[in-house]
Amino acid sequence: MIPERVNLREKLQLFSALWSPKVVAEMNDVQLKLVKLEGDFVWHEHEDTDEVFFVVEGELSIEFREGQVNLSAGELCVVPKGVEHRPRAEKICHVLLIEPRGVINTGAAGGELTALNDEWI
Amino acid sequence: MIPERVNLREKLQLFSALWSPKVVAEMNDVQLKLVKLEGDFVWHEHEDTDEVFFVVEGELSIEFREGQVNLSAGELCVVPKGVEHRPRAEKICHVLLIEPRGVINTGAAGGELTALNDEWI
Repeated sequence: MIPERVNLREKLQLFSALWSPKVVAEMNDVQLKLVKLEGDFVWHEHEDTDEVFFVVEGELSIEFREGQVNLSAGELCVVPKGVEHRPRAEKICHVLLIEPRGVINTGAAGGELTALNDEWI
Repeated sequence: MIPERVNLREKLQLFSALWSPKVVAEMNDVQLKLVKLEGDFVWHEHEDTDEVFFVVEGELSIEFREGQVNLSAGELCVVPKGVEHRPRAEKICHVLLIEPRGVINTGAAGGELTALNDEWI
C-alpha cells in the first residue's frame, strides 16, 4: 500500500461550512486541518498546545492582546500555547491548521462556534 | 510580544543548498522545515515517526518499495513511520517537511547526504 496524495485545493472543494476544521492528514498525533474562515472568531486560547495557522488562500489576521499579525497566502504563524488570540478574515480565507489531535477550535472559551472534532474529508 | 509571521517564499530565498532542511517554525516538538531537492535521495526510513512532505513549488516524487507518489505544488503526502522511501525530483523542487524535532534526513541510512539537524533560518 502506498500513501495517499492529498491535494489541498481538491479537499477545499469538498466543504463550505465556515469555522469548521476538516482533517486531511495526520502525522503521529498531529493533525493537518483545512478550515474556511470569514468574519471574527471568538477570543480563546489553547492551554496545552501551540497551533500553526498557514494561509492557503486569502488574507487572515490573528489578533493578540498586544497586537495583530496579518497573513497572506504562503505565510504562517505559530500561536504559542496559553496565548489568547482571535482569528479574523474580512473576506473568506482558507487556512491549514497544524495542531495535535483533539484540539477544540474554541479552546476553553466554548460557544456556538465550537466545531465537531476529528472530522475527516 | 506577538508571534512572528513566516513567509515561505522569503525564507526560500535565504539558502540554496540542496537536501539540507532549514527549520522555519516549531509547534510543540514538531518542526516545519523548508528543503530544496533535486535529483535522487537515498532510500531510508524513520523508525520512530511519520513525516509530511508538502510541495511548495515544483514536482516531487516519493518512491516506495511498492510504488510511487507524484506530488505537485499544493499537494502533500504522509510517509508512515518505518516505511522505506526515496524522494526524487527531476528539477529543483521546494518542500515543506513537518516532523518531530530531531529527525535526521537520511534516517538510519546515513551517508554523505546526511544534513545538519536543527538549522534555523
